[in-house]
Amino acid sequence: MSSAPLRLYWEIGHLRPGQQEPASWHPANVPGCAQQDVGTAEGLPDFRVGKNVTLWASLESSSFVYRARFSRPELPDGTQLFFHSDGIDYEAMLAVNGVRLARHVGPYSPIDLDLTPHLAAQNELRIEIAPVPRRAGFPPDRTQASDVFKPAVNYGWDFQPRLIPSGMWRAARLEKRAERRLDAAELRYELSADLRSARLRCLVSGAKLAGRRVRLSLLGPQGREAGVWESVLTADTADVPLGTLENVALWWPRHHGTPALYSWTLSLLADDGSEQDRREGQVGFRRVRLLMNEGSWKEPSGFPKSRSTAPIQFEINGRRIFVKGSNWVPPEVFSGSIGSARYTELIERALGANLDLLRVWGGGGPAHDAFYGECDRQGVLVWQEFPLACNLYPDSPDYLSVLVPEARAIVLGLRRHPCVAVWCGGNELFNSWSGMNDQALPLRALNAICLELDPATPFLATSPLEGMGHGYYRFLNPDTGEDVFRLMANVRATAYAEFGVPGPSPIHVLRSVLPEAELWPPRPGTAWETHAAFNSWTPDTWLDLPVIERYFGSSAHLEELIERGQLLQAEGLKCVYEEARRQKPHCSLAMNWCLADPWPCAANCSIIAYPNEPKPAYFAVAAACRPVLASARLEKFAWTAGELFCAELWLLNDRAADADAGIAAGLVHAWLETQSGRIELLRWSFPEAPANNNIAGPVARALLPESAGGRFTLHVSVEGRPEWNSVYTLLCRAPEDKGSKVVSTPALNQ
Amino acid sequence: MSSAPLRLYWEIGHLRPGQQEPASWHPANVPGCAQQDVGTAEGLPDFRVGKNVTLWASLESSSFVYRARFSRPELPDGTQLFFHSDGIDYEAMLAVNGVRLARHVGPYSPIDLDLTPHLAAQNELRIEIAPVPRRAGFPPDRTQASDVFKPAVNYGWDFQPRLIPSGMWRAARLEKRAERRLDAAELRYELSADLRSARLRCLVSGAKLAGRRVRLSLLGPQGREAGVWESVLTADTADVPLGTLENVALWWPRHHGTPALYSWTLSLLADDGSEQDRREGQVGFRRVRLLMNEGSWKEPSGFPKSRSTAPIQFEINGRRIFVKGSNWVPPEVFSGSIGSARYTELIERALGANLDLLRVWGGGGPAHDAFYGECDRQGVLVWQEFPLACNLYPDSPDYLSVLVPEARAIVLGLRRHPCVAVWCGGNELFNSWSGMNDQALPLRALNAICLELDPATPFLATSPLEGMGHGYYRFLNPDTGEDVFRLMANVRATAYAEFGVPGPSPIHVLRSVLPEAELWPPRPGTAWETHAAFNSWTPDTWLDLPVIERYFGSSAHLEELIERGQLLQAEGLKCVYEEARRQKPHCSLAMNWCLADPWPCAANCSIIAYPNEPKPAYFAVAAACRPVLASARLEKFAWTAGELFCAELWLLNDRAADADAGIAAGLVHAWLETQSGRIELLRWSFPEAPANNNIAGPVARALLPESAGGRFTLHVSVEGRPEWNSVYTLLCRAPEDKGSKVVSTPALNQ
Repeated sequence: MSSAPLRLYWEIGHLRPGQQEPASWHPANVPGCAQQDVGTAEGLPDFRVGKNVTLWASLESSSFVYRARFSRPELPDGTQLFFHSDGIDYEAMLAVNGVRLARHVGPYSPIDLDLTPHLAAQNELRIEIAPVPRRAGFPPDRTQASDVFKPAVNYGWDFQPRLIPSGMWRAARLEKRAERRLDAAELRYELSADLRSARLRCLVSGAKLAGRRVRLSLLGPQGREAGVWESVLTADTADVPLGTLENVALWWPRHHGTPALYSWTLSLLADDGSEQDRREGQVGFRRVRLLMNEGSWKEPSGFPKSRSTAPIQFEINGRRIFVKGSNWVPPEVFSGSIGSARYTELIERALGANLDLLRVWGGGGPAHDAFYGECDRQGVLVWQEFPLACNLYPDSPDYLSVLVPEARAIVLGLRRHPCVAVWCGGNELFNSWSGMNDQALPLRALNAICLELDPATPFLATSPLEGMGHGYYRFLNPDTGEDVFRLMANVRATAYAEFGVPGPSPIHVLRSVLPEAELWPPRPGTAWETHAAFNSWTPDTWLDLPVIERYFGSSAHLEELIERGQLLQAEGLKCVYEEARRQKPHCSLAMNWCLADPWPCAANCSIIAYPNEPKPAYFAVAAACRPVLASARLEKFAWTAGELFCAELWLLNDRAADADAGIAAGLVHAWLETQSGRIELLRWSFPEAPANNNIAGPVARALLPESAGGRFTLHVSVEGRPEWNSVYTLLCRAPEDKGSKVVSTPALNQ
Repeated sequence: MSSAPLRLYWEIGHLRPGQQEPASWHPANVPGCAQQDVGTAEGLPDFRVGKNVTLWASLESSSFVYRARFSRPELPDGTQLFFHSDGIDYEAMLAVNGVRLARHVGPYSPIDLDLTPHLAAQNELRIEIAPVPRRAGFPPDRTQASDVFKPAVNYGWDFQPRLIPSGMWRAARLEKRAERRLDAAELRYELSADLRSARLRCLVSGAKLAGRRVRLSLLGPQGREAGVWESVLTADTADVPLGTLENVALWWPRHHGTPALYSWTLSLLADDGSEQDRREGQVGFRRVRLLMNEGSWKEPSGFPKSRSTAPIQFEINGRRIFVKGSNWVPPEVFSGSIGSARYTELIERALGANLDLLRVWGGGGPAHDAFYGECDRQGVLVWQEFPLACNLYPDSPDYLSVLVPEARAIVLGLRRHPCVAVWCGGNELFNSWSGMNDQALPLRALNAICLELDPATPFLATSPLEGMGHGYYRFLNPDTGEDVFRLMANVRATAYAEFGVPGPSPIHVLRSVLPEAELWPPRPGTAWETHAAFNSWTPDTWLDLPVIERYFGSSAHLEELIERGQLLQAEGLKCVYEEARRQKPHCSLAMNWCLADPWPCAANCSIIAYPNEPKPAYFAVAAACRPVLASARLEKFAWTAGELFCAELWLLNDRAADADAGIAAGLVHAWLETQSGRIELLRWSFPEAPANNNIAGPVARALLPESAGGRFTLHVSVEGRPEWNSVYTLLCRAPEDKGSKVVSTPALNQ
């Protein structure tokens, strides 16, 4: 093959402001991160521990130099030697043997340089990385990222320390390229309206290809040959119609079917029919549409009449699905050193929590290709945002001159992944804290780029759009006094694209990063604050001591505090997912903020602590997102002894895939377990119901006895279907006054 | 010059289904309309009279043939003969001397054919027009236009009869073109941030231009030379940077400044410096932005949080203006025969009514170029919609393959007009009766086209967007029982982009088109219904007899009915414009539906009856849109004798242009004139106020005497500024019961 990669051995040096040459060279990881390699080599302590991260700020004004030395390889006649990088973050000057070949700006677009004319027997590749970009005149926060096409999260967020990476964050290599060769090939398809067949074509580019024959071989999901097509190329860059694949096995998200992937090989054939070069890849056939949510056309009613809400009902392969997802942030601060193992373990967690979709949040920007490959294989949908978040990105020609090629590179790189189900301009851009709107040229350009390069995949200008909601992010809203149960009962969104409840990390995570002396009690100003427990989104988040204390009183020790905070998180998230599902079909999506921590947060809305430690909320989410479950709508978390307890009973069913996706008639049994014993509520004989339909049941009611103080649990069990059972932990407090009381009604529907 | 046009003499023939050659030929108007020429020649009666329009339906399935015969003109060496048409509606086959040269679909893109190789001594150009497109499987209404890029209004609307035109609706000519020539030139500019200078460049195309020098001469608004720049072309198609114009005189909408236009001449120079060819044009320098409306970032409040509203605050040349506009529909059914005189007289009317902007509604599609030239000269802003309205235009490749080149032609044709202040995808597309949404590929494509070709002009996907409102369209809403006063008091939109109140046409218009026998009383099923008085939007609109009767009882004769209906229209529209202005700055725009009738409507929301007959509402709108006026917020139209009358007094001021645009302190005097005499209300000493600011005054209150039955008027007069005075006509009805009454309070602020 023509482009066999030649591995390079990289070194890195550190240029403080004014320096021309580094004082010393260190081994460099490529892919990796300049700050990580240099900081570590120069003795900076682990930024994840204590307040060490502040020491790493000194690297912000530094430049870095990568170098790799290599001997001229043997190059047969007409063969060229290329340097190829999948991406360099953020501004780089590339030179070989002292000759400057290119200046490159932006982390996502590949770099491809012909070194052949510059080669000597011994060669040095040198890549200078400019200091990380920081918009002049802005404070040291995310707004310094507001004119660059680079994740804003690294400039400091409410869960992540400021530590701005740069460098050779993606793979790089030398490639020998034959005179006649395939440089790239991409299989594209158009599904028929009935989704049974796919018209195939291949985008091919290379050199000296005109008049040459290519052959596409397609293997089906089980490795069986699915088809072979041949065509003659008319130019070096060609869009080659191939033929039609019949009886397509569709790619489905895991909880709705099989994520069927085909493998293809495009071979460049010599005159004698032998293979001269090849490109390989995978393809998954799926159709994604965003439809109007049920009932949305009826609104607005009355005059003057505005527009209806934006569509956010996912339809995959013709089937409307309720999306249960989670927000994804890069799982490491040094995003260049995220290996595929990190992706695999966290994607497995998402599947384990019955989640269908990961929203690759704009604050973090696109992941490495391995992430998408794993999502393809595992059948996880991806909501892919461009790296814009919570900033007013400008209409300026300078910014657009980077945005356009970088965004094109993202779409060209990722559109081949069937998992990528929706493009989105970025996070919360049409809100006051960003200040962008429908007229913003960056978002109009992203829309146009996606339309041109991937028209079959929906595009959202930002999230949220009208009808959708972001937040709330605490168990209790101190402004309104509402807990999450009451909040959710009063709202009606088409999609809850972000919501969170914070919870502390497990104690072993805390012990590994907080100094022993600061562990108890948690206080602002300590490493707790560095690790996002205090003064993050608001002064009290994310540890949220006031809310924990409001419900439980003061905690005796750290373990107790953690248990209480984690309980609130678990019950709170369960409430939101289940209430969103009860609002189906008007509501079609629920995604918690966020799946996993990028570093050891002491507390955060994540359900997985760093690096891969599920909190109790993780298992609560997994329970709330089971395809079928018994569920209770509760009006609040904290009840009062002597009060009439109420719980609306439901059966939730998102299954639609199989013939047996409906619910057969059966019996639900509900009771309370209190400190003073069991209280029977009711038995509900529920009817059968078709696939993908919830069943609203009776309202269970019972007087909470005076002696029921402390926690109690509501049990909703389904006879013969223990896997559908649900349990809710609630609080019963002593009554504050002794006025007249309601007498318990007999349990209904028994 | 190279492209001197040679006039052609056209004939037209009628092909009924199955015919190959017309039975006879008639003189054809080019520009014109096939149906009009043929229908008239074949004796169809005036469609504007009675129910005659139904007779014209027979032409829907016909094809038409245009032909023009001409002798081969003298063509010097290298000179070519082109046929050029500015647009043919809708599907055409073009042939010369029996040789088919092109098939063309879509009315807006020009057609340019080199005839030279096909010329004989005597020649015949032949253009066959296919039957008007009607989407198969749809009823005979606007939905038959839902897969064509052609105005839907002609397929039948609630104010316009179904009569679908086609043919050579735009100019066509033969052009001799020299071997070396300019084909087109367009002056483009970028204004500096301070709006003081403009960087000029010229887009040039032609033949044999490489290496040739061009000279741009610019004359300022007073005809003085503003600059001369020269450049050497490097190719036949070039984007030529010229230089910077300093001290730019900006183009302003008429009520805010001077619509300064510059004239330019681009000359192609021979080696000796003499002029070999030229192109001329005009340019107006302006910056238009849509900003967020005041207060919009504060909403939504609470969680889950959705997006803020879409920006619709017009900023012209750095100045926020409250837009008082009107909706524009084509002023003739046969749009090919609209001459510039029709545009001029109606644009003058718009200026006379103190309107700043015309919304060229998507149902009617773009006007002829003369419309925009007149708006440029007169200083009228244009909101330009693409021809999509109230339909679900499909994502299909067939539709997009027409939409893309046609939309590009529209933008390329109109972007040079400074009056074009905003592009819009079309009318009410994000509402249930259309069924499109943000994912619709046609609207994403229009956004991308406008971004590419005219990025400095804002783009709206449709109207209304979130925050904006369309409707209501009657004086009283029978569903809610609210009159327009109460409705407006309860709503709060960023922009009232459409609202209407119907009114009958003047009696001489009615007499000219309704049979004498049907004139009185108006009845459904008669020519009144044909002319939109009944069963239009709803069964009772647009004559709206039930509402007229509700307020005034039965009318004795036609004149009385007309007077009453016209009074409701006038007072209703005044209310909406003035209330929208009182809601400034959160509200930034008000546009009534619609300016003028396209044919003799018996009743309609228009304020100008066909062809150019102002209704009383026209003068009411003119009064409500005065830059400065005294205004009253009234809670209702119909009061009851013995009731406490209230009126909030205001001074409204949209002036911002001049140093003296504020309001100096002064005195308002308010009183009622009733059937039983004058009732003094109050005198209000109002303070001075800065430019572009309203002043809220006191609430005038007075008991309406028992004897005040019938109409009464509220007078709000400004001492020494009679041009700011306002009068409101209201109704006082006999009380229905005789319970306890409020005693009149003394007038406030006297």
